[in-house]
Amino acid sequence: MSFRKSHPPIGARPGTLAIPPDSPPPQIRLVAYDAQGVEERDVGDVETLAALPGDRIIWVDVRGLGDETVLRRIGELFAIHPLALEDAVNVPQRASSTLYENQQVIVVRVPRIGEDGTIDAPQVCFVLGPRFLITFQERPFGFFEPVRARLRAGIGPMRTLGPDYLGYALIDTLIDRYYPIVQTLSEEMEELEAEVIEHPLEDSLAKIHQVQRKLVLLRRIGAPQREALAALLRDHSPLVGEPVRVFLRDTYDHAAQIMEAVDSTREMGIGLVNLHLSNVSQRTNEVMKTLTLVASIFIPLSFLAGVYGMNFDYIPGVHQPESFAIFVGVIVAIAGGMLWWFRRRGWLGSRRR
Amino acid sequence: MSFRKSHPPIGARPGTLAIPPDSPPPQIRLVAYDAQGVEERDVGDVETLAALPGDRIIWVDVRGLGDETVLRRIGELFAIHPLALEDAVNVPQRASSTLYENQQVIVVRVPRIGEDGTIDAPQVCFVLGPRFLITFQERPFGFFEPVRARLRAGIGPMRTLGPDYLGYALIDTLIDRYYPIVQTLSEEMEELEAEVIEHPLEDSLAKIHQVQRKLVLLRRIGAPQREALAALLRDHSPLVGEPVRVFLRDTYDHAAQIMEAVDSTREMGIGLVNLHLSNVSQRTNEVMKTLTLVASIFIPLSFLAGVYGMNFDYIPGVHQPESFAIFVGVIVAIAGGMLWWFRRRGWLGSRRR
Amino acid sequence: MSFRKSHPPIGARPGTLAIPPDSPPPQIRLVAYDAQGVEERDVGDVETLAALPGDRIIWVDVRGLGDETVLRRIGELFAIHPLALEDAVNVPQRASSTLYENQQVIVVRVPRIGEDGTIDAPQVCFVLGPRFLITFQERPFGFFEPVRARLRAGIGPMRTLGPDYLGYALIDTLIDRYYPIVQTLSEEMEELEAEVIEHPLEDSLAKIHQVQRKLVLLRRIGAPQREALAALLRDHSPLVGEPVRVFLRDTYDHAAQIMEAVDSTREMGIGLVNLHLSNVSQRTNEVMKTLTLVASIFIPLSFLAGVYGMNFDYIPGVHQPESFAIFVGVIVAIAGGMLWWFRRRGWLGSRRR
Amino acid sequence: MSFRKSHPPIGARPGTLAIPPDSPPPQIRLVAYDAQGVEERDVGDVETLAALPGDRIIWVDVRGLGDETVLRRIGELFAIHPLALEDAVNVPQRASSTLYENQQVIVVRVPRIGEDGTIDAPQVCFVLGPRFLITFQERPFGFFEPVRARLRAGIGPMRTLGPDYLGYALIDTLIDRYYPIVQTLSEEMEELEAEVIEHPLEDSLAKIHQVQRKLVLLRRIGAPQREALAALLRDHSPLVGEPVRVFLRDTYDHAAQIMEAVDSTREMGIGLVNLHLSNVSQRTNEVMKTLTLVASIFIPLSFLAGVYGMNFDYIPGVHQPESFAIFVGVIVAIAGGMLWWFRRRGWLGSRRR
Amino acid sequence: MSFRKSHPPIGARPGTLAIPPDSPPPQIRLVAYDAQGVEERDVGDVETLAALPGDRIIWVDVRGLGDETVLRRIGELFAIHPLALEDAVNVPQRASSTLYENQQVIVVRVPRIGEDGTIDAPQVCFVLGPRFLITFQERPFGFFEPVRARLRAGIGPMRTLGPDYLGYALIDTLIDRYYPIVQTLSEEMEELEAEVIEHPLEDSLAKIHQVQRKLVLLRRIGAPQREALAALLRDHSPLVGEPVRVFLRDTYDHAAQIMEAVDSTREMGIGLVNLHLSNVSQRTNEVMKTLTLVASIFIPLSFLAGVYGMNFDYIPGVHQPESFAIFVGVIVAIAGGMLWWFRRRGWLGSRRR
Repeated sequence: MSFRKSHPPIGARPGTLAIPPDSPPPQIRLVAYDAQGVEERDVGDVETLAALPGDRIIWVDVRGLGDETVLRRIGELFAIHPLALEDAVNVPQRASSTLYENQQVIVVRVPRIGEDGTIDAPQVCFVLGPRFLITFQERPFGFFEPVRARLRAGIGPMRTLGPDYLGYALIDTLIDRYYPIVQTLSEEMEELEAEVIEHPLEDSLAKIHQVQRKLVLLRRIGAPQREALAALLRDHSPLVGEPVRVFLRDTYDHAAQIMEAVDSTREMGIGLVNLHLSNVSQRTNEVMKTLTLVASIFIPLSFLAGVYGMNFDYIPGVHQPESFAIFVGVIVAIAGGMLWWFRRRGWLGSRRR
Repeated sequence: MSFRKSHPPIGARPGTLAIPPDSPPPQIRLVAYDAQGVEERDVGDVETLAALPGDRIIWVDVRGLGDETVLRRIGELFAIHPLALEDAVNVPQRASSTLYENQQVIVVRVPRIGEDGTIDAPQVCFVLGPRFLITFQERPFGFFEPVRARLRAGIGPMRTLGPDYLGYALIDTLIDRYYPIVQTLSEEMEELEAEVIEHPLEDSLAKIHQVQRKLVLLRRIGAPQREALAALLRDHSPLVGEPVRVFLRDTYDHAAQIMEAVDSTREMGIGLVNLHLSNVSQRTNEVMKTLTLVASIFIPLSFLAGVYGMNFDYIPGVHQPESFAIFVGVIVAIAGGMLWWFRRRGWLGSRRR
Repeated sequence: MSFRKSHPPIGARPGTLAIPPDSPPPQIRLVAYDAQGVEERDVGDVETLAALPGDRIIWVDVRGLGDETVLRRIGELFAIHPLALEDAVNVPQRASSTLYENQQVIVVRVPRIGEDGTIDAPQVCFVLGPRFLITFQERPFGFFEPVRARLRAGIGPMRTLGPDYLGYALIDTLIDRYYPIVQTLSEEMEELEAEVIEHPLEDSLAKIHQVQRKLVLLRRIGAPQREALAALLRDHSPLVGEPVRVFLRDTYDHAAQIMEAVDSTREMGIGLVNLHLSNVSQRTNEVMKTLTLVASIFIPLSFLAGVYGMNFDYIPGVHQPESFAIFVGVIVAIAGGMLWWFRRRGWLGSRRR
Repeated sequence: MSFRKSHPPIGARPGTLAIPPDSPPPQIRLVAYDAQGVEERDVGDVETLAALPGDRIIWVDVRGLGDETVLRRIGELFAIHPLALEDAVNVPQRASSTLYENQQVIVVRVPRIGEDGTIDAPQVCFVLGPRFLITFQERPFGFFEPVRARLRAGIGPMRTLGPDYLGYALIDTLIDRYYPIVQTLSEEMEELEAEVIEHPLEDSLAKIHQVQRKLVLLRRIGAPQREALAALLRDHSPLVGEPVRVFLRDTYDHAAQIMEAVDSTREMGIGLVNLHLSNVSQRTNEVMKTLTLVASIFIPLSFLAGVYGMNFDYIPGVHQPESFAIFVGVIVAIAGGMLWWFRRRGWLGSRRR
Repeated sequence: MSFRKSHPPIGARPGTLAIPPDSPPPQIRLVAYDAQGVEERDVGDVETLAALPGDRIIWVDVRGLGDETVLRRIGELFAIHPLALEDAVNVPQRASSTLYENQQVIVVRVPRIGEDGTIDAPQVCFVLGPRFLITFQERPFGFFEPVRARLRAGIGPMRTLGPDYLGYALIDTLIDRYYPIVQTLSEEMEELEAEVIEHPLEDSLAKIHQVQRKLVLLRRIGAPQREALAALLRDHSPLVGEPVRVFLRDTYDHAAQIMEAVDSTREMGIGLVNLHLSNVSQRTNEVMKTLTLVASIFIPLSFLAGVYGMNFDYIPGVHQPESFAIFVGVIVAIAGGMLWWFRRRGWLGSRRR
């Protein structure tokens, strides 16, 4: 999920919809509710949306973007700004919050971690009007089920507050999805830390790099999200009432907490890379000391043995019977002296306290 | 104490209380005071709080979060916003300061260093109203004893100013708890510095890494704390009077000073890692020079001895009696020449001034 | 395309036009349009521009800067500020947005990636007046063809809104040109990542460095561009109407998204460099372990063999027939002991899980 | 001078004075002046300060903090805010500037470099009232002598402007004390740079680390100082007149210049560490090349000599008289060939241009 | 040109002039102009300036600071604030822009690159009054010649606008002097990049370090310059008219462009250092592989030859005639096996694609 945008051709006019080729056809689910009750149904024909009763709050959940005609028709029916429709369809957009006259358009990216550990971040776009909320999902995800259940049950201010509260509840649900991912990455990093400190493996660093990459990715998705929520709070959108703002501030705090966790995990990773590098250097140093020790003792001794193996007719001491004992004595003395010198330099013995 | 949140399930409605399973049952301590006197008592039945005399300042100290019914009842009695109650119970929250209509809710994280050197940061949540203060502690900590004593003694403006001053005094007490921890870490880092400079050990770097991790953690807890205090000062909460603001600014200065100490200790740690890495490289270099010296001198000499050990019928000089002396002379000359060359390259002798 | 500026001589008066020596002569294309229709023609003589009908929106597209007289005359005819004209001609300028009394001057840099992978960024300067738009291109590029086509077709608000919308449409087209370049660099970096993790080559790092350099360059061009768009939005230029501001905000979002992609690709590159460095260290460590193993086992054994090859008259055991078998036994024991010790230290066997 | 605070016990009430145990008893020097003249005298009994004539500007210089009663009495006499008095006494505080009703309290840290190169930063606290200035010094330093002399001589606006100008003059004198320290550290770093480039020593890096630590420390002291001055200018304190603000801006510029010098020296240090690390790597590389050269040539040759030293009954060529000459020829050819190969790989000969 | 300040003694009163000992005596050049004409003459006696006609714009160019009396007299004649005079004389100051009542004082640092590649930055101080401009140069530089020529020729608004335009023209000329220096450093860095990638030398890193140091220096001089220009624009000085502000904004853009070029060149340098370090590591790795290859093959073989060179009476196979052939076969098999193993591990053959 790197930088890849199903972008309209360069120079295309704004509002051009670049529908990804593998998009499923849109499933439209209509929810109309007020304090008294909730009515839910799937909408087969988009024209049904043209004649909605005005007294209830309308939530149109569009799942799948594979039919331009339908999307354009929804855009017309709810007077959605062409750029807002473009944001909804041309995925992935940067998370953002924009006010178009009397509609607040919020783009949310929902991080998911796949079976194989890759992260992707499908997009959900919210178009919030005075009495309706439209959500565009790339494909039919199950993100919204818990909120739908709360809506049916009518718990809390769910049905008494306007569509802004519904939008908040949905966005909060999506932001919550960051937690398990950040926790997974954080735990992976902690396991890698134990591994690096206790018994580093050849591919430890590559694994740290993989986790770091996912954190960079998560940051790239999540930081604009936090900013978008901050902007929504700061700009005092007329479509978000004061009671809902209090809740949104809580969501913002969650987003900020998530980004701080991402950042401190990344810093931990940077520290781990340094630790690992130093471990490798230290192990190389250990290996070198062993080699130097063995070679420095035996290479000179070998030379000495070689000298007495030469075929010169006259080599001093060759014929004395005590020579071998003297030779052994000299050798032991040399070896002992070098060991003493190595020990003095601290190259012998463990240094771990 | 990494990123772990006793978080309600994804999509849960706001205000859901996710009480950690091992929470002790709440102990409620009621303090009612005015300039004349202080009355303290433990409250067994939460309903006692329903009928409090209105003329004194009330401090309800809730220690332990293990009973949702009791917590909800306190929330009802003091009209606490659902999100505020959620912040108080769903630990750990990010340190923050939020105004809910006529209540200022402040979340404080109190760093503690355990026997085994691990850092955790239990949370205390303050709900400050016009005439009352409620504090929620995760478990029955003794953090507040000194302030309680001052309250009994009636020293300073403790009883003449409102609950905002009490809140300040308690928060200040909690922020003070950073000092010994930062000092401990700072001293550990200084000891590690002495160790790295004088006699680096194999696990020095792992120990530096451990201290750095704790500093990152402390930063992650403390930086939002500093921001929360700054926000409280900046936003001119109606619940914090001007006389108390002056005191809070002092607390903010302490928080800032602590974060600066954390940051400069961390920078010191980064410098230490570099120093250590370079030390290892330098030691490897020393080891290599020794090996190279020994091997470069004796390997050619061994070859020479090997040549005269060959069994060729005719090798020049083998039968001359003076050959061995000449051989020794040649060897000494070669060894001397190489030593001279090594010295000229600066590979011999210490380089420490 | 490093820091090279066809800059006027030091101390030249402002407004001096430093025309690059190889500039092609200007081709002037005049487009006059209103909601009813579009008229396009090439203008051979600059004086034709002196007598333009006032009721249509005028777009003068100047391609090539090789004739100072013509450029100065255009400046006079449209009352362009000398500094604005200097910005248009003295390429390359930093991307910027400046209000000169009643003209908004916007400098846009258009990144291009050449056949050989080098990046350059020719400049297009927009002078936006109340009823006209003048564009200055360094040479006759084809950047504007798609917009020209949309203008002819009259799609969208192209002909109903003023020259500010035309300017927006052109700038948006130019910003879109960043996408394929960032995507190319991002993909190159991902390929290099696979290379470094799976089978690092000698020049992998030099290739990463090349990509990093291009990203630094792209950042240097793009960051002022993003700022210029932000300034244009923030300063509420009287020449940019509210409907067009909404569109420009979308363009700004694109520029921000591009810069975020550049930054996260760069961070990925930094991680890769560390990974590669560590790989090299680890491989050196592997190589050293092999050498140490072989040398540590066979150098002492060689010494032992050398001892029994000496020509001393008396060497214990030389004449016993069982000596060789004992010698072989001792040797096998020594080698086995060392192997056991190496294995215990973890220097034998792979460490990849 | 690391993070060590003579801090009151946790939970102590604000305004608690934690007098460091080794504080000398306060010496109080009273200066009363106006345009006509200056009167100076040492005050033995603090009660003398209770009856001061109101028509002159009063400067009370308290040197030494070792008597709580005296300090508290001064606080009462001049109506100093308890927190201000706490700031003055509980050293070291962070440099700051705070307005307490009608008193401006400024904490200044004065860096000093000791004989042994360690840096400490005693604190001077200024309490500026409408007609008086009180200074609290940790011990009797001589910092203020030059200003006292100027006051006596009545040079410049010293006696015509109010106590704010006196405060400025004293603060400016203290800030000036940064210059020689920064210059010393900057020169040490430049010497280390020359050392690293020309003849790096074993402990060069440890010395760079020491200088870096002092710079980090200086930054930690000086950055809040700069901020405090900026805050003093920004907040338009009623106690600092417009003529004095112009002078204070100059002091702020000095503080900013000092911090910039600290930062660029630190960056230089970071560059030096990298340079040194690379030098060590490069020297290791040189050493390795020498070893490889010698070993790669002579180890195979030794083997060849060893082969002809074997005691096999039949070894080809052993009995031919020309064998030795051929052997020498082969050896020279092998050695020559390897040298040629090494040279081609660039491992022979210096690489310094 | 490091941190060195001809600073007055600590505690000196503000306005003290610390004239550097080697300052040349001031040469004063007076230019009086209006739209009609220009009059230029050298002023020998400073008192001449006391009686200047009031109807023309006056430019007093003071070159050299070696006479305190003259400088103080100029200060009196034009009512220059003592601190402004101090800024002009006590070189080097930080680049700044300050408003003293009715005078705008601007300090500009002019970077110069010497024959030996060192950078210095003499200072020019501008004192801009309503009808006059005074410039103080450290020594008689030729910086202002081009502007003087334009003034004589009366090109552009040079003589019709006030002294603010003259000031702008002079400052713009000085800022232009950054361009060739930044370009030189940028080109040096690019040459070093080619060197490091194609054939790194022993001192490449030291050279990169030198260029980096100059860039740090340039940043330290130039960043306050950019800030000073930004402050001049932001603060809406009453002495700088609106027409001149437009021009100054252009100068600010140049300063910003220069700093961006400095920053991206520095980032390139950091990348180069990493590239070089990795190259050295990789070369060490190559060298080690060669050594390991040769040693691992021949050391065991040498041992084998040594075994058959022993003087044991009984060594199996010594007396069989076919033994030598078998021995050679075994040796070739061992060597071949090891080569095969090394190739499988990827230690043989080049890895460059």
